[in-house]
This record gives sequence, C-alpha cells and structure tokens, in this order.
Amino acid sequence: MNGAESLVRTLVASGVEVCFGNPGTSEMHFVATLDRVDGMRAVLCLFEGVVTGAADGYGRMAGKPAATLLHLGPGLGNGFANLHNARRAGAPIVNVVGDHARYHGHHDAPLTSEVVGLARVCSHWVHSSLNAKSVAVDGARAVQAARATPGQIATLVLPADTAWEDVDGAAASLPVAAPAPVAGGSIDIVAQLLRAGKRTGILIRGAGLMAEGLEQAGRVAEATGAKLLCDTFVPRLQRGAGRVEVERIPYFAEQIVDALAGYENLILVGAQPPVSFFAYPGKPSWCTPEGCRITYLAQPNEDQVGALRALADALGAPAQPAKRARLQRPDLPTGALHQGSVGMAIAHWLPEGAVVIDEAATSGLAPYGFTTNAAPHDYLGLTGGSIGWGLPVAVGAAVACPDRKVVCLHGDGGAMYTVQALWTQAREKLDVINVIFANRSYAILNIELMRVGAGNGGPKALSMLDIGDPTLDFCKLAEGMGVAASRATTAEQFSEQFGDAVKQKGPRLIEVVL
Amino acid sequence: MNGAESLVRTLVASGVEVCFGNPGTSEMHFVATLDRVDGMRAVLCLFEGVVTGAADGYGRMAGKPAATLLHLGPGLGNGFANLHNARRAGAPIVNVVGDHARYHGHHDAPLTSEVVGLARVCSHWVHSSLNAKSVAVDGARAVQAARATPGQIATLVLPADTAWEDVDGAAASLPVAAPAPVAGGSIDIVAQLLRAGKRTGILIRGAGLMAEGLEQAGRVAEATGAKLLCDTFVPRLQRGAGRVEVERIPYFAEQIVDALAGYENLILVGAQPPVSFFAYPGKPSWCTPEGCRITYLAQPNEDQVGALRALADALGAPAQPAKRARLQRPDLPTGALHQGSVGMAIAHWLPEGAVVIDEAATSGLAPYGFTTNAAPHDYLGLTGGSIGWGLPVAVGAAVACPDRKVVCLHGDGGAMYTVQALWTQAREKLDVINVIFANRSYAILNIELMRVGAGNGGPKALSMLDIGDPTLDFCKLAEGMGVAASRATTAEQFSEQFGDAVKQKGPRLIEVVL
Repeated sequence: MNGAESLVRTLVASGVEVCFGNPGTSEMHFVATLDRVDGMRAVLCLFEGVVTGAADGYGRMAGKPAATLLHLGPGLGNGFANLHNARRAGAPIVNVVGDHARYHGHHDAPLTSEVVGLARVCSHWVHSSLNAKSVAVDGARAVQAARATPGQIATLVLPADTAWEDVDGAAASLPVAAPAPVAGGSIDIVAQLLRAGKRTGILIRGAGLMAEGLEQAGRVAEATGAKLLCDTFVPRLQRGAGRVEVERIPYFAEQIVDALAGYENLILVGAQPPVSFFAYPGKPSWCTPEGCRITYLAQPNEDQVGALRALADALGAPAQPAKRARLQRPDLPTGALHQGSVGMAIAHWLPEGAVVIDEAATSGLAPYGFTTNAAPHDYLGLTGGSIGWGLPVAVGAAVACPDRKVVCLHGDGGAMYTVQALWTQAREKLDVINVIFANRSYAILNIELMRVGAGNGGPKALSMLDIGDPTLDFCKLAEGMGVAASRATTAEQFSEQFGDAVKQKGPRLIEVVL
Repeated sequence: MNGAESLVRTLVASGVEVCFGNPGTSEMHFVATLDRVDGMRAVLCLFEGVVTGAADGYGRMAGKPAATLLHLGPGLGNGFANLHNARRAGAPIVNVVGDHARYHGHHDAPLTSEVVGLARVCSHWVHSSLNAKSVAVDGARAVQAARATPGQIATLVLPADTAWEDVDGAAASLPVAAPAPVAGGSIDIVAQLLRAGKRTGILIRGAGLMAEGLEQAGRVAEATGAKLLCDTFVPRLQRGAGRVEVERIPYFAEQIVDALAGYENLILVGAQPPVSFFAYPGKPSWCTPEGCRITYLAQPNEDQVGALRALADALGAPAQPAKRARLQRPDLPTGALHQGSVGMAIAHWLPEGAVVIDEAATSGLAPYGFTTNAAPHDYLGLTGGSIGWGLPVAVGAAVACPDRKVVCLHGDGGAMYTVQALWTQAREKLDVINVIFANRSYAILNIELMRVGAGNGGPKALSMLDIGDPTLDFCKLAEGMGVAASRATTAEQFSEQFGDAVKQKGPRLIEVVL
C-alpha cells in the first residue's frame, strides 16, 4: 500500500464518503486509489471553486466533512473564495492538496508556490505531511480537526512522494469531541436576565437554528416574551411549516440598528454581536444599541441546543412551544414576473424537505418571506459574502441529500462566477432546480455606490456594475453543460416551469427575466 | 479629492491606462472616480480569474502594467491562479485590492480575511495603505515595483476609508529602473567558453526572446555554432517568418535530458536551468547533463539584449544573422481534423502580427510546429502551469494590441476554468479567435497517470480525467456570452471557419471536435 491509499482508507474509516475534486499530476496516486478502496465517491468538478463550494454544501447538510482534492497552490487558490464562505459557516471540510515531491520543491518548477502559506490564510488547521508513513495519521487528524464544533477547514498538503512511497497501512479514526457543555452558571445568569422582564432578543446561530434547537428556543421565547433572532446570512436554518420562527436581522447597518432599537438584552447563542457588513462613511459598524447588555449563553464551540434546553427548563417553560409557522401555500401568481411572484410560486410548489440555497442577493428577500409558511425546508445562506457560492453548494447539498429537492436561488452576476457547477449537476444527475434572477446587473452595487457616498456614478462607473451588454443567455449556458433550461418572462410561465421541475428529478435551470 | 481619486490620477500619471476589474462595495470610490479622471479604460470581467489573466496578457504585450481592481480577500483569491502564471512570466501587474475600512476590520464582518497574508503568497510587493494621504504615493510605488525587470506583481491593499477620505492631491510617477547592465567580465567568460568550441546551448528567456534579442542571439549562434534554446513555456516569443529561430526544450524530463545530451556548456540568458515540470518516481528532476557547465550570461533582472549584443560583438560575429525562418504557408488541409490539420490551417491563415496564445496542452504541439514558418507573430505560453489562463490572457492581449489579431488555442478542460472571459471579449468587441480543442478529456492526465507509476487507472480513476459526460457544447457556451461560434469536425470546415474569422474583426469561437 502506498501513502495515497493509506490516506483514502483512513478518510473512509473516519467517515469521509465523498471527494469533490479536480486533480492533476501530483494527485494521480490518490486518484488511482479510488478504484482499490470501497466507500469513497469521487465527484469531478470543472473548477476548484466548484469543488470547495460543493464541499461546503455537503458539509452543511451531511454534518460531516467531504474531502476535496486540489492541485497545488493554484488549485487551492481557485478554491479560496468558497473556503472563505465555508469557514464563515462553520462547515467541516478536509482539503487534500497535492504538492511537489519534497525533493522537487527547491527546483522551483513552474507550479511551485507557497502552498502552506496560502493554506494558512483559508484554513483552521494546516499540515504538510513530512513522510509517507505519517500520511495516514495526518489524514485522521485532519478529519478530527474538521469535525470540531463548529466545523473547521482542515488542509492537508500531500507532497507527491509521500503519496507514492510504500507504507504499512491505514490509520484508525480519531475521536470527535462533542460540543463543549455550557456551564450551569452561564445558564443561570441568562435565566435571571430573562426573568427580569426586560426587552430581550436571543440571537441564534449554528445548531441552535436546527429544528430541535428552535424547539427549545421557542420554549424560552414563550416563557419570557424574548424575541428569537438570526443573522441575515445563516449557515443553515430549518424553517417553514411546523418550525419555530426566528426573525432575520436585516442586511444594512442602519436597518439593524432600527431592528435592535429598544432591546435591553441581547443573548447570543452560537452567534456574535451583529455588525455592519461593510463600513460606510458616517454609518455605524457596531449595531447593538448603547446600553443593551450582551450576554453569551453559548459560544460557537459550545452545545447550543443543550444550553437552550437547560435554559427553557430553568425558566419552567412549557415542554413544547405552542407557536409554530403554519402551512400557507400562496396561490399561484399571475402577471408580472418579479421577486414577489417568483417567491409566491416557489412557496406554492416547494416540496417538503427541500433544501433552499440563497445567493439571490437583492432578489432573495421576497422568496425568503413567502417561504416562511411553505413546507418545512432547510435554508442555506451566503455566510462569507463571497459570490459564486450557490451553484456549487447546490452540488454538494444534492450529493449529501439525494432524496431531497434542492432549490438554488441565484443572482446572475454571482452565477457567472462558478457557472461550471452546472456541468457537475448534469454529470451526477443531481436533483437541483437552479433559479437565475437575471436583472443583468450587480444590482446591490448600484445601491452601495450611493451608500458609500460616491454619488450616483457616471457612465463609466455604472458600466462596471452592469452585466447586460451583451445579454447573458443562461439557457444556452445551461444547455451547453447538459442541463435542461427554460426562460420565464411572466409569473404564469415561471409557475408552470417551476412546478414542472418540482415534479421531475434531475437538474434544471430557469432563467427569470426581471 | 479623495484617496481613490488620488490613486487613479497617480496610476494614470505613472502610465497605467487600463484597469481590469470586478469591484464590490469596498471599491466603489475607485469606480466612481473613473468618470472624473481621463485616461483610464475600465474593463469589467465576470470573475477575478479573468481579471488577473487579462492583466497578465496586457502586461506581456504592452510591456507595462495594467491595474486590477479586486474585492477583498476572496476577490484576490479568485485571481490567485492567474497571478501565479503572471508571476512566473515576469508580467507586470498592479493589483488594487479593496479592504474593509481600518476601523471596521476588528468587527470581523463576513468578508473579513487576511488580505495581506494572501497577497504575500502571490505578489512580489505588498503594501496596505496606512492612511488616505499616503494612498497616492503608495500607488506610485506599486507601479514602480511592477515595472522592475522582469515585471513583478505589486499588490496595494486599499482600506475603504483611505479611499473615501479627503487628500491633497495625486503623486508624481516614480522612475523605472532600466534592466541592470551585465558586467563585461561575465561577457568575457562566456565569449571564452564559446571560443573553446565545445558543444553549447544558449537558453534564452525574457527580453532575449523578442525580435531584437533573437537577432543578437542569432549572431552569436552563427559565429560559434551554439544552439539557441527556449523553455517549453515562454512568457513571450517573437517567431515566424523573418525571425531567428530557437529550439524549444520539450516538456517531459526524460525528453529534456535527451535534448540536452552531449551539451558541454549551457549558457543562461534570463533563464534558469531546465527542470522537470513535476517529479516522477525514478525520473530525474534536474535535467542538465552531468559535466555540462552552467554559466549565466544574464540573470532575469539584467539586460539580456545588451548582453547578447555585447557577446556577439566580442565574438566578432556578423552584423546580422543570415539564418532566419522563411515564410512557408502550408496548403490548406483536407480530411480528418486533428491537431496537425488545425496547425496547418492556422499557419496558412495566420495574419502578420498575430498574437498566438497557447493553452492547447497536448493539442498544441503541431500548431506550434507548423507556425514556425508562418507570418511573424508573438507567441505566449503558460508559464505557471495553472490552467484557465488562455481565454483571459486573450482579453488582455487584445486590449493591449487592438490592431493585431489574437488567436487563442485552448484545451477544453482549461477553457472551462475561466470561460467567463468570452463575455468580456464580446463586450469589448475584442479581435480574438478562440480555438477550443475538444477532446473531452484532461488528456495530459491520462499520460501522467501512467508516468507517475499509478497504473492505467480503473473506471473511477479514469472518470476523474474524463470531461465527456455530458458533452460540453462550446458553441452554446460562447453564444450564451455573446460570442459567435461554430463547430468543425473536418479539416475543410476548420480551414473555412478559421479563414473566415481571420478576415473579420471581433470575437469568434471555433470548437474543434477531436
């Protein structure tokens, strides 16, 4: 057995079942191993930004890491942006980055770069294997690091000779630590604050936004009148009919300030205090009202669900919350096509258990609103703010959840970043409906141009925000990659096309002309 | 005037005329400035890998830097791979990377990342502006750094508040150092070696591969019988009819060893000793024969053309070389379509002054051979080995040379990496013929799989090298981005389509079905 095989066997033994990759020469031994080792599905992506985004989507939905297979520094560089998004989501990922053989690096061959230096910028854990016989255990350590709470980006650099040299065998999996329990004292402090009856918001993130966490949070809310809140961009939120609702904090700083006005307590459950996404001249970065006390119930590495349950119990809350979102399917929309009518149609058709991925940017607000009372579903948000995330994440979510419909809502500008993801959707016959909001603009930037105080913009400035010349034809792009596609220009057309796609399996793209 | 305007004015004053970009909120003041300052062309690209690749192509052809405009760490990350290629080419680039306002960074907003740490991995020169009043001079320093010999990657990180705060004015351009002269002693040593009559190769790179450098090298070769050589992947080579020929060193290590066998002297002119692109078990990394003496005539930062001229003079060489490539247009090919017939048709039709960009990988050998005697042209190679380079470089080369036809030869696998470049070609009406060699495979990897000793590969391994399922339709992809396209399956079809494209202006794509 060589080092590569010891690594793949160790990854499989550690629970890694999928590898998203775009390998090159330095990863060929890893690739060759895939036929000798059972239990590792290999998914080819045509660009590494798709690889890492798919691993993000998989990690969020499977709750455990996929591996990525990346080709030296440039391969990791291409994956950087979606690793950034994944890092901000607490998604677990194990990157395997092939590098030159140890004795080859000093020759400074064309693909030589500082792989470890690059990995440090985008990873929580980095290691470059020192010899073939340590590769297996390095792999086990990488999985262990990735499976921390919250999930981490673990990057294992694999010099080519450590992959091809002989080794004795694979390594055993390493134990995965459970989330740290929250000390009873912290729960008592929060319980006391809540009993004081002041106006309180409970800002939740991480496991607290899964159904069970929300159940416990709902008990707390009903016992105390506290408001349940979540960030604009959440890693994963279980919502829709039957689920306890949380109010989403808005995007812009001054809106956050308004939303939090009057709160005397802000309780953080796996979350951090909300801040402005960007800085703007004369606008606040810090959004919590002066005088509002911030208290951590659970840090991101702690057991958020357990803490919420203990808090609810301490408060003598009812065993179950009474208030939940009720199923309310909007009628199918007619007339003009806009994000409102799109949202109504999606909320109407959304099947139970769907996974909704939202990189719709300015077009996503209405769909988010309408789906509050849709069938229960998971909702994944753009946690790191780097566009080109949604289509790849749809790949990973669909691989993780083959029996669930994935609905990917995407702005046209962001979709072009990693449009190659459509090919992998077709190749793997993934059950994804991609809805592209074609406003032919980086629309958010037209708003931002004014918000930063740079004026309305002259023709040159505005041309840098406009992607309408020439018009992108997303149907041709999708068909060019093997994905069936259609275009909707009216609400009726969209309703029919989306409903049709829901009834079938396999990838589909609908271009929504706004 | 704000910091952003002082920067743009300084860049223009320093000779920067073009900015390739994909800006976001933190770059809005830079964008707004474009209408207030004359002399900066702004070119929007739909992905930052296109931005940096375009800057590479521009830098190689214009001989001076373009600016890029990138959005925080993820924007720079997306541009990493083509910055790697540019760095390996000695192409000058000035990156302007917007970052959070200085007072905002510690809030750890979603897009926060270690921008400077990332920049260090892919840049020669990095600076983050400390305040608005230093932005202008920082810009001048960045241009100065980029214009070193050979060109460098200079990355200026621009915190948003340094862009919007008031400043007094722009900065003057800084002097650009000429290439360092080569000491007479070095020239004497090489002249002496050459006079000794031993078998000698002169390996040339950088300015030495431009027409004037080759003239001087040709004089040396004719006076001494030395062989002129260049790397497999050259930043820029002026070749074709009328130009002094150089022999290209082959790609694989053992072929390099064969090609260099018998040489007693290897003279390096702006080049480094040739090494294997990758390491392989049992194959050499170092390719220069034992006992062959390596001597630097000129280092990469030195005046290669001046050194070759002085060497030729010291050797008493004729004023001009007698041997040059002669124009030899092949007949138009008929029958089967393969890289040979494609190469013949291109060599037949190639207009004088064309810029040929080669990311055709395994399909590029025959076109390279046939164009040796085509009309004089510039040839740009994939110096860093990171695929997804050619289509963006075509954007930059066409912007730099609006009166020259750009011919971009591309493998299908690499083309998918940065296929978004086609949209910018259409938007800017760039005069580019994109030839996509559609073998539906990462063909080189099928060879590499065996070369690394990993066997022939089982079905899972081979599936990771195969991009034929589903079939990519490059005509639809191109049309989806506004580029006229056609497909060729016979030599006659390709000849006609390519000839037709040569006669017209504007972007065009031809899918060559292999």
